[in-house]
Amino acid sequence: LIVMASCPALVVLLFFSAALSSTCQGGKVLVYPLDGSHWLNMKILVELLHSQGHEITVVRSSTSWYISEGSPDYTSITITQKHSQHIESQDFMTSFLKRSIDIRRREGSLRGFFEFYQNLFHMVRENQQDVAKMVTDIFENKTLIRNLKDKEYNFVLTDPAFPAGVLLAHYLQLPVVLNARWAYNGDGHFIIAPSPLSYVPQLFSYNSDQMDFHQRMKNVISHLMLVYMMHFVSDPPYQAVCDKYFGPEVNVMSLMQGADLWLMRSDFVFEFPRPTMPNVVYIGGFQGRPSKPLPADLEEFMQSSGEHGVVVMSLGTLLGDLGPELSEIVASAFASLPQKVVWRHIGERPTSLGNNTLLVKWLPQNDVLGHPKTKLFISHGGTNGIYEAIYHGVPVLGLPLIFDQMDNFVRMKARGAAEIVDVTTVDVESLTKTLRNILHPANSYGERMKKLSQLHHDKPMKPLDSALFWMEFVMRHKGAPHLRTESYKLPWYAYHCLDVMAAFAALGLVVMALAWLLCRRVFRALTGPKNSKS
Amino acid sequence: LIVMASCPALVVLLFFSAALSSTCQGGKVLVYPLDGSHWLNMKILVELLHSQGHEITVVRSSTSWYISEGSPDYTSITITQKHSQHIESQDFMTSFLKRSIDIRRREGSLRGFFEFYQNLFHMVRENQQDVAKMVTDIFENKTLIRNLKDKEYNFVLTDPAFPAGVLLAHYLQLPVVLNARWAYNGDGHFIIAPSPLSYVPQLFSYNSDQMDFHQRMKNVISHLMLVYMMHFVSDPPYQAVCDKYFGPEVNVMSLMQGADLWLMRSDFVFEFPRPTMPNVVYIGGFQGRPSKPLPADLEEFMQSSGEHGVVVMSLGTLLGDLGPELSEIVASAFASLPQKVVWRHIGERPTSLGNNTLLVKWLPQNDVLGHPKTKLFISHGGTNGIYEAIYHGVPVLGLPLIFDQMDNFVRMKARGAAEIVDVTTVDVESLTKTLRNILHPANSYGERMKKLSQLHHDKPMKPLDSALFWMEFVMRHKGAPHLRTESYKLPWYAYHCLDVMAAFAALGLVVMALAWLLCRRVFRALTGPKNSKS
Repeated sequence: LIVMASCPALVVLLFFSAALSSTCQGGKVLVYPLDGSHWLNMKILVELLHSQGHEITVVRSSTSWYISEGSPDYTSITITQKHSQHIESQDFMTSFLKRSIDIRRREGSLRGFFEFYQNLFHMVRENQQDVAKMVTDIFENKTLIRNLKDKEYNFVLTDPAFPAGVLLAHYLQLPVVLNARWAYNGDGHFIIAPSPLSYVPQLFSYNSDQMDFHQRMKNVISHLMLVYMMHFVSDPPYQAVCDKYFGPEVNVMSLMQGADLWLMRSDFVFEFPRPTMPNVVYIGGFQGRPSKPLPADLEEFMQSSGEHGVVVMSLGTLLGDLGPELSEIVASAFASLPQKVVWRHIGERPTSLGNNTLLVKWLPQNDVLGHPKTKLFISHGGTNGIYEAIYHGVPVLGLPLIFDQMDNFVRMKARGAAEIVDVTTVDVESLTKTLRNILHPANSYGERMKKLSQLHHDKPMKPLDSALFWMEFVMRHKGAPHLRTESYKLPWYAYHCLDVMAAFAALGLVVMALAWLLCRRVFRALTGPKNSKS
Repeated sequence: LIVMASCPALVVLLFFSAALSSTCQGGKVLVYPLDGSHWLNMKILVELLHSQGHEITVVRSSTSWYISEGSPDYTSITITQKHSQHIESQDFMTSFLKRSIDIRRREGSLRGFFEFYQNLFHMVRENQQDVAKMVTDIFENKTLIRNLKDKEYNFVLTDPAFPAGVLLAHYLQLPVVLNARWAYNGDGHFIIAPSPLSYVPQLFSYNSDQMDFHQRMKNVISHLMLVYMMHFVSDPPYQAVCDKYFGPEVNVMSLMQGADLWLMRSDFVFEFPRPTMPNVVYIGGFQGRPSKPLPADLEEFMQSSGEHGVVVMSLGTLLGDLGPELSEIVASAFASLPQKVVWRHIGERPTSLGNNTLLVKWLPQNDVLGHPKTKLFISHGGTNGIYEAIYHGVPVLGLPLIFDQMDNFVRMKARGAAEIVDVTTVDVESLTKTLRNILHPANSYGERMKKLSQLHHDKPMKPLDSALFWMEFVMRHKGAPHLRTESYKLPWYAYHCLDVMAAFAALGLVVMALAWLLCRRVFRALTGPKNSKS
């Protein structure tokens, strides 16, 4: 009781945990996830909701790669998809990756610029069309729709990168909670919050929040490309669905803007500070968890590193193999380090591999990162991996390949907690130099990352608890309209007050014209007689 | 243990309350408050910090009205002020109030418009000059400054409506925490967050967040008036201080924009949703507390109201007496109600007073509002009173007089939880009609206010706990720079990317010019021979 009295926050939470259990048990949530790494995130929220006694239904495609049909945490609705080649298809993604790296070699050139966006638009178009087809199949399946309506879900939980879930929620007239980082014109904030391009870096600009004139120019161009993508690549297949089922007055963008709550997978130790909105809840790093003990042999290897510690390298699921050439470079650089190295590597064993390097096919990444001997993490820059590194305070060396990976590393580098290596130009010498630089204690990469980690942990509530609280808030109050501006319903000229400015300008012109006429009158009256005299 | 395991948030808070007690006890905070009702708010934070073992020093003026010299919660530094007539002086404020009401009668006319701002600017100028003089006196007192430096405070806590505290913090090179609602160009958000005037109502516009063309025009005009006030009324005395002590490159606005944390006295059940920033923590309604039992005689009176319940009327500290004419109107309207009425009234007993009305010189406002018999609160619209009404779920009838009071009621009226009466035109009939309208259960004012109250209480953390957590966060990390954008350091044209737009426009013009030259060339080449023939 003394503890409680000295900590008012505790008392509040006791009160609210009681309130939650009385009003929110037995909620029903319809989840429309995105596959791939996005599902790994969504699954954490699904498990969380299930653990609190809520009933979860997950909509999945029959070709899904990650989302299993059966689970103790949810029941699934499987939509049969033929001829699908969407994001979950490994072949499709591998070929996209190969093309992307190839294009990276021409980066900086005008040809590279257009190829980059062409390749991106192609990938996005294929995937968005598939998903739009999937939601049409759902709308056409009257039995399914009736069942979904009968179920009386509390809200739809979905990822706005592919806005099919938002359309389904509108069809079923349910509140929407978004589990978001990217929407389809860049960072999710671009949908709902003012985003001044002078200090809010746009995706693929590789800018930090401090930009010189050229960087701001690049930022504006990157933004225009994504606006183009939104209007002419991503939007059309969904807008066709909207037109058919809701009428032309409903558009996809306003459905996203009308979402009740954004669970944003960002944290400001990682993301640059920027304008936000009252209905955005930050849950960045919600996947973080303490490390568990390692298997005995791995633990022994870690300990054998002595004072120098261990370098851990693990690229994403899509990229276990860097190819023979790059692998030899990496192996040689590793061989020259005083540290030990654990390297998740799928391909051939490189000939230049040093005695200090342990190749593994799989590693318990979170547990290794949380190990006290770990000094450096070499990563492709997926958000999940970076947040694990932040959670455990391990600096990162980035080999960014596709998507947001480069932008992610730009953020970490701006914090002084990462360095970036370009896989298209790297050689043994430059890689070794970068490795030694980031590992040298005098350069304080580890110290700065530890400081970031402290800031990340120093929150009044864990991100997952915030997520749960606000999802149950939406259940209790059937949405959260008081936190959401409806300014998106304004016409664009009214939003920017252009009509008011035009009115003022018109008034100004009239006043100036009258003043001019008056002056002319007076001038003539004064000079006229002289003129007539002359 | 079972309770803890089922409520992860609890575990987190246990962890953090342990962390807090180990790292934050014995903090030192320098408070530079604003007097009047602002001090009532600041005092709550001072008491809170003191209760956690922190040492507080409060800077006060020798002419202070509310801030006492001695207190168990803080030690004070008194700055002697001669000839002061600032906001704490009751005479000054009473004459301002009288003039304001007088001007309200001419509202809507151009004369009324200018008189309103003239009166406002006069009041603001006098007060800001006094406060700027006070901070100069501090800077000139070398002994005091040395003592303040030696003390090594963790941060300065201040109110940005009068930015002297921000200047002092800059002088002492300390982090800044702002306890804010108004800064000196309107709502504090206008200093740091994008504020589109199409849906963010400006102070004195009396707009909600939904505006038609004329309202948006009024909003822009109200904004321009406050921008004028900022540059030409509020800023000059402080800028003179900046110029003298910090050099001309430091300006007051950027000192405010550089504050680490804004404890914003807003809550979105009251304030309209609008863009915000990561370093804004909402503590609106932090003064709320459960009601205590009433004195026996008052309790008896409340109970005697039966099913009809009680109407409570209490205007601000500045206005106990409405004057005989208005008091008679109010008394007559009350007399015709089936409810009982408790009326805090200082002046003469109105002759038309009904049997149902109890006059009191003082009442325990929070306890009366929390009483189950209370059906309606009649208020002048100070923020504290409105938050008390929201806390207890009692609808409000507003008699707004000065400052933000009208704007406050516009917010509550837009939520369907209040009605507004114009004191300059009200008569018995219209007041009675409004009273009966708002009291009639079928009109659901009470129901809507109860819903707002529920939303207000349904938070993961109490506002005061948030305030404490984030103030101690600033102590632990010596600021919160990762939550604060430094975009305010950009020149205005760069902030708005006008240079980039100009470059694009120039490029566009060059391309068009070249295209035109080319066309002309081609055209001449094609038509030239014919011409030469002719």
